[in-house]
Amino acid sequence: MRALTACLTLSILISCINTAQATATKKVIEDEHLPRNIIYLIGDGMGPAYTSAYRYYSDKPDTKAVERTIFDELLVGMASTYPDDDTYVTDSAAAATALATSTKSYNGAIAVDHQHHALPTLLEIAKQKGKTTAVVVTSQINHATPASFLAHNESRGNYDAIADSYLTNLIKGKPVADLMLGGGTKYFIREQRNLTSEFEALGYHYIDRLVQLDDVETLPALGLFSPSGLPAALGSDDPLRLTTMTDSALRLLSSQSDPFVIMIEGSQIDWCGHSNDIVCAMTEMHDFANTLERVKRYIDNHPDTLLIATADHSTGGLTLGKKGVYQWKGKQLQLITMLPEEIADKLIATPKILDKPNSFNRFWTDHIGITQPVEAQDELRQQLLANLQQEKAKDKVETLIKSAIDTLTHTGWTTSGHDGIDVQIFAYGRGSHYFAGHMDNTEIAANLIEMINRKKSSHSALLLEPRI
Amino acid sequence: MRALTACLTLSILISCINTAQATATKKVIEDEHLPRNIIYLIGDGMGPAYTSAYRYYSDKPDTKAVERTIFDELLVGMASTYPDDDTYVTDSAAAATALATSTKSYNGAIAVDHQHHALPTLLEIAKQKGKTTAVVVTSQINHATPASFLAHNESRGNYDAIADSYLTNLIKGKPVADLMLGGGTKYFIREQRNLTSEFEALGYHYIDRLVQLDDVETLPALGLFSPSGLPAALGSDDPLRLTTMTDSALRLLSSQSDPFVIMIEGSQIDWCGHSNDIVCAMTEMHDFANTLERVKRYIDNHPDTLLIATADHSTGGLTLGKKGVYQWKGKQLQLITMLPEEIADKLIATPKILDKPNSFNRFWTDHIGITQPVEAQDELRQQLLANLQQEKAKDKVETLIKSAIDTLTHTGWTTSGHDGIDVQIFAYGRGSHYFAGHMDNTEIAANLIEMINRKKSSHSALLLEPRI
Ligand SMILES: [Zn+2]
Ligand SMILES: [Zn+2]
Repeated sequence: MRALTACLTLSILISCINTAQATATKKVIEDEHLPRNIIYLIGDGMGPAYTSAYRYYSDKPDTKAVERTIFDELLVGMASTYPDDDTYVTDSAAAATALATSTKSYNGAIAVDHQHHALPTLLEIAKQKGKTTAVVVTSQINHATPASFLAHNESRGNYDAIADSYLTNLIKGKPVADLMLGGGTKYFIREQRNLTSEFEALGYHYIDRLVQLDDVETLPALGLFSPSGLPAALGSDDPLRLTTMTDSALRLLSSQSDPFVIMIEGSQIDWCGHSNDIVCAMTEMHDFANTLERVKRYIDNHPDTLLIATADHSTGGLTLGKKGVYQWKGKQLQLITMLPEEIADKLIATPKILDKPNSFNRFWTDHIGITQPVEAQDELRQQLLANLQQEKAKDKVETLIKSAIDTLTHTGWTTSGHDGIDVQIFAYGRGSHYFAGHMDNTEIAANLIEMINRKKSSHSALLLEPRI
Repeated sequence: MRALTACLTLSILISCINTAQATATKKVIEDEHLPRNIIYLIGDGMGPAYTSAYRYYSDKPDTKAVERTIFDELLVGMASTYPDDDTYVTDSAAAATALATSTKSYNGAIAVDHQHHALPTLLEIAKQKGKTTAVVVTSQINHATPASFLAHNESRGNYDAIADSYLTNLIKGKPVADLMLGGGTKYFIREQRNLTSEFEALGYHYIDRLVQLDDVETLPALGLFSPSGLPAALGSDDPLRLTTMTDSALRLLSSQSDPFVIMIEGSQIDWCGHSNDIVCAMTEMHDFANTLERVKRYIDNHPDTLLIATADHSTGGLTLGKKGVYQWKGKQLQLITMLPEEIADKLIATPKILDKPNSFNRFWTDHIGITQPVEAQDELRQQLLANLQQEKAKDKVETLIKSAIDTLTHTGWTTSGHDGIDVQIFAYGRGSHYFAGHMDNTEIAANLIEMINRKKSSHSALLLEPRI
């Protein structure tokens, strides 16, 4: 092995890549390929099975053709995600650290190395360079992925400390992000301390409802729209809440005279994967896909901007087809109007739905809608009924519902954790061709950091060369 | 839906793409990007989990860096694989038909459409254009993938009829392929009819042992090295038999004055996937990876040649990580010296290995080598012992061994069939940039057919445009 540590820049915030790609060659980026703005999207847990599934889930029933998705339009390559230990399977913190700092670290790390030393993040570097910076997520804003762009902590679980550091980790005397949208009031408004007031004292406009987004006219701003993560897409007041937040963020960032760098995360795709919930996964993917469409349109009007999108890892070991059946009936998931978790709540609150086949069939038709044989449906009703009075009834009922949906659609899962499979890279706009082919996740960040550091005509940037 | 049927060429063999990519734009290929020769590689069943797994399986234990693989070097895009029905999950016949003819058909189809009409294959078109043609596979040469390039049949299961048609499906009075290497004597040398003699009567040099490959000095030639598929890589006399056959094929094809088109298939990756056998899968991947290296080196010396590689689909629902564990210990598979199937044979033939913990531990250390706790190992010994006398003992013993290996390495599977996930596209050499980004599998074939049909400076070719 060569423990290759290539320092790519000599700026104050030195970014080094500790890369496994010992053979990677480098190439000077041309001025005309240098993006003014960078829009960096991360689908947490969105491995390649998710984008294939989304194509077939959203395939229009009234057409014979299978429609291309935004993911198909933007695909340019794939990335390896392994962390810096011997597991090969990353968690979201190590992956986000790699994607934010270009350095691999251990599972759990928030932009720190093995010695817990801070690793400069690309939003810190952008802020240092005078750019406007933002994060927009559907998790709490102090969750692993956004935290790895905004803070440094030895453990992703230190939610309060991470939230606190958003006020103390300063670049040129200011918090790292000029705009933060997502969830997290329970961490930011605590009994002992109200961080939102402290942000207001620094001049941040603070809002706590999505509908107030239109009222925000200037930066800096902070929006926390729920205690922890935002409500799940399906059943939410705004099932496209990531798209909504992204719209406002792009409006605000465009109104600034400085260039901008924004990280947008579809945070909950991963949560659906952990729960092995395909209904949840596809509806979160829908919001993320819409967000990508929105960003692509933005770039069609602002061709000096780069869209780069990837996933931190894949979650759940999702497969299309299961137990020998050569079929995936994901299109039928469109019929489902309620998440399995909510269905479980409903059945526990109204157990008489399960008393008779007729009432259960009505409930099934209204909320799940996928045809299943009468006997299977009645067997499920009886299993649900038997579990209603047991300990952990909600978990058991939810699992029965998810498992029925998986059986009907031939959806497979292998784990409640992550999968080591490579993820995809999507890119569009100025400089997008520097992300084609296979890269390590650290190389994506290394190239973005180079683009952020680089001044036009300074000719100092060395980008990792595209491989095609 | 628009049932878009775009006819791309007006030659006698009209190739139409019935494509779902209704929005795909087309682009004239420039003379300087037109390859003289095409080397088309198919990893049967080799979905993206297989190439990620192969990277970690082959990661050198004495280095900290994770080495890049040939797949990483050559990745340019991904392809959708769905067949022309409502299943979204293809079989090898429908996928090979799409990859050989640019037309989607039904599962089971060998280069025929729904009405069982023959669809022109790219090897037929190449032969028509005066190019030298070849197939090199590790399955029997009349298996679904090679058959879809050389014959037309309504069902992949008609092995004898498909073999027969290799002598009757003629282009300019000659069989479609000038060189065929793989397995299949039991289909080609039958009681009633010896097809190999008939090929010899047509001037083909016939061999039936890999070591005779060096004796072949001219084309046409036929090599059938086993009754059905070739012996599995692990434990075979030549674990790199696809590489060996490819070497000879490239030597023979290069000696011709005409340009050539060859299809090379790593056929058995799929078979390992169906059997959910990760040892088998990684050792077949090793032969396929070596073949790719060999072809890449060929192109470094013959830059007028195109390498294009893909998979027909993914098999088994393979995942790296299982049951909540964030780790994949695939590197340990290098310790295993025998396929689970052979281990089962050995234990059934020599049951006294299982009598005592000591003898089983010795056997384990010699052939499997992965450390496992004493209690687990003894529990496995007792389970194996209990299954030795049962019906289908071999299946049961083999399953117990595979399942122990999966548990120790955290390898997940969801199906004995195929997975609908997109597969990767790898390309190198002249014209490789026409395969970047996302394509449908029919579009890969459409571009190759255009390249084969196109005469230099005729300016008639319309290629589907690369999307990045
Ligand atoms: Zn996760
Ligand atoms: Zn198969």
